[in-house]
Amino acid sequence: MVETTRNYNQFQQAPRVLVVGTGAVGGYYGGKLAQAGARVAALCRSEFAQVKEKGISISSVGGDFTFMPEKVIGHLSEYAPPPDFMLVALKVLPQIDTANLIRESVGPETTIVLLQNGIHIEEPLVEAFPENEIISALAFICLSRPKPGHIEHSDYGRLVIGRFPQGSSTRTELLASLFNSVQVPCETTEDVITARWRKLVWNAAFNPLSVLAGGLDTLTMVQSPGAVQLARKIMNEVCQVAAADGYALPAEVVEQNIEGTQAMAPFKTSMLQDYEAGRPMEVEAILGNCLRTAQQHDVEVPYLESFYVLMKLVQEQRRYK
Amino acid sequence: MVETTRNYNQFQQAPRVLVVGTGAVGGYYGGKLAQAGARVAALCRSEFAQVKEKGISISSVGGDFTFMPEKVIGHLSEYAPPPDFMLVALKVLPQIDTANLIRESVGPETTIVLLQNGIHIEEPLVEAFPENEIISALAFICLSRPKPGHIEHSDYGRLVIGRFPQGSSTRTELLASLFNSVQVPCETTEDVITARWRKLVWNAAFNPLSVLAGGLDTLTMVQSPGAVQLARKIMNEVCQVAAADGYALPAEVVEQNIEGTQAMAPFKTSMLQDYEAGRPMEVEAILGNCLRTAQQHDVEVPYLESFYVLMKLVQEQRRYK
Repeated sequence: MVETTRNYNQFQQAPRVLVVGTGAVGGYYGGKLAQAGARVAALCRSEFAQVKEKGISISSVGGDFTFMPEKVIGHLSEYAPPPDFMLVALKVLPQIDTANLIRESVGPETTIVLLQNGIHIEEPLVEAFPENEIISALAFICLSRPKPGHIEHSDYGRLVIGRFPQGSSTRTELLASLFNSVQVPCETTEDVITARWRKLVWNAAFNPLSVLAGGLDTLTMVQSPGAVQLARKIMNEVCQVAAADGYALPAEVVEQNIEGTQAMAPFKTSMLQDYEAGRPMEVEAILGNCLRTAQQHDVEVPYLESFYVLMKLVQEQRRYK
Repeated sequence: MVETTRNYNQFQQAPRVLVVGTGAVGGYYGGKLAQAGARVAALCRSEFAQVKEKGISISSVGGDFTFMPEKVIGHLSEYAPPPDFMLVALKVLPQIDTANLIRESVGPETTIVLLQNGIHIEEPLVEAFPENEIISALAFICLSRPKPGHIEHSDYGRLVIGRFPQGSSTRTELLASLFNSVQVPCETTEDVITARWRKLVWNAAFNPLSVLAGGLDTLTMVQSPGAVQLARKIMNEVCQVAAADGYALPAEVVEQNIEGTQAMAPFKTSMLQDYEAGRPMEVEAILGNCLRTAQQHDVEVPYLESFYVLMKLVQEQRRYK
């Protein structure tokens, strides 16, 4: 196998990527793929005019850069032919039907990359596009979007990606090599569902805690013995559910997550950012799906259940106001 | 036994009552005792001038009235001799040393009436005043204090009182007859600790829930299946702790509390009122003492623990702001 410099051996030229959901995550990783030489287009809604004119400026611990998409579109009909990679970085919310939303731009050869939070989020896409390759991707990164057209990348940045539901693929390796070529550490895994459970351990604990405790950043949480104790309880419950679902996690994952958070620059979790901005939070993808999986396997998760119910109430309450 | 009209047989004249903590609860019940013919003085802090000049106006479902204390004092040294009844309606907070605060006005014949929330709140008073009679009192009432010198009584009003730790007493009966004479239903119990646990069932569930869910009144809570489900879990845990502590509650207490709340006019819990006004909340008296009792008896209370830790975090977070 002859590798080109850019490792595009599978394609005639640089792979075509369409970013759907050009928020902080989609903007940052889309921008890095463009840096790596991919031809990246971006579907934008609220920031369409801004991004079309000036692109997205990214202040990053790894070096500032501007992501100027090859094409900025306001609707999928403006993009053809279908992309090689559809990078889906939408939030996972009950009111967003991702499959339906992306359908018109998914061609037979399109690989759908789900760069999203939560657990059991791939099934609707598998059902809608049974013939397409789906890559599930996890971002370990601290991002925020302080104003339109601007992203701040304050810490971390690593990706873990894998063919869904398991195994390896040429496109998974290609995507990883593109990211790695621009200093985004990207690991491939043949067991991406376990990796997703592993990430959920952090998300299910610290995301809701940051909101329910009245708006705490990560440092304030890990400096509070009560918060850490509660985070551990949630993390242990997620580990139990993962194991019951067939994806046992190593015992040290809980302490690794606590220590990792202690080492992190103070950061507002994505749920807290959403809460403060009045945006919907990924309560179902992160907590609801985990709770339902627990119930399927008769695993008792009282701490998780408390968080889930409270977060749903907080979410509903927001809507009334 | 010859009963006088006013039932003051124990005293030469109308009993002297000193209200310490003249907030909504102290103001309302102190006012009712004054209506019943008791000679009621009030210790006031922030509202001293207002109350001294105009008394406390009370808009009540049972009929509006004004409570004009016989004497309004800013410090206990202004009151002598010691009262027959010291009506303590202070909030139960770690930073308030009630025993020390009332000490100078507690005479050998003073009965201390603790009209307060929480569990295991009497012990410090028993220790400080081992020779004095202590009456523990529970108010089932919806009160708020929309502005200084004004109390709103929107629903309920019943009292349950009893000699602490158990049994009956002449003064308990006298106090009850005073309240009953002015349409405040007041029940005496020989087992006031069980009554206190019974009240905690409601308080431990709906008080923190109203705050953590983002500011819900009672009606919104009982109309939400998730909130009711979580309230039931907490209530069941409190019942388990009560039983382990030697005070078994009847099984129907949980559903009675849910139904009672459904029948109640929409009301902001005291914790929510305190939270919104930036005042400290009775997290330790209501949740902390119950959790510590659970731990003493090795009872698992994950829902209660979640609420306790979150409420402590919310409380601390408030202090930073």
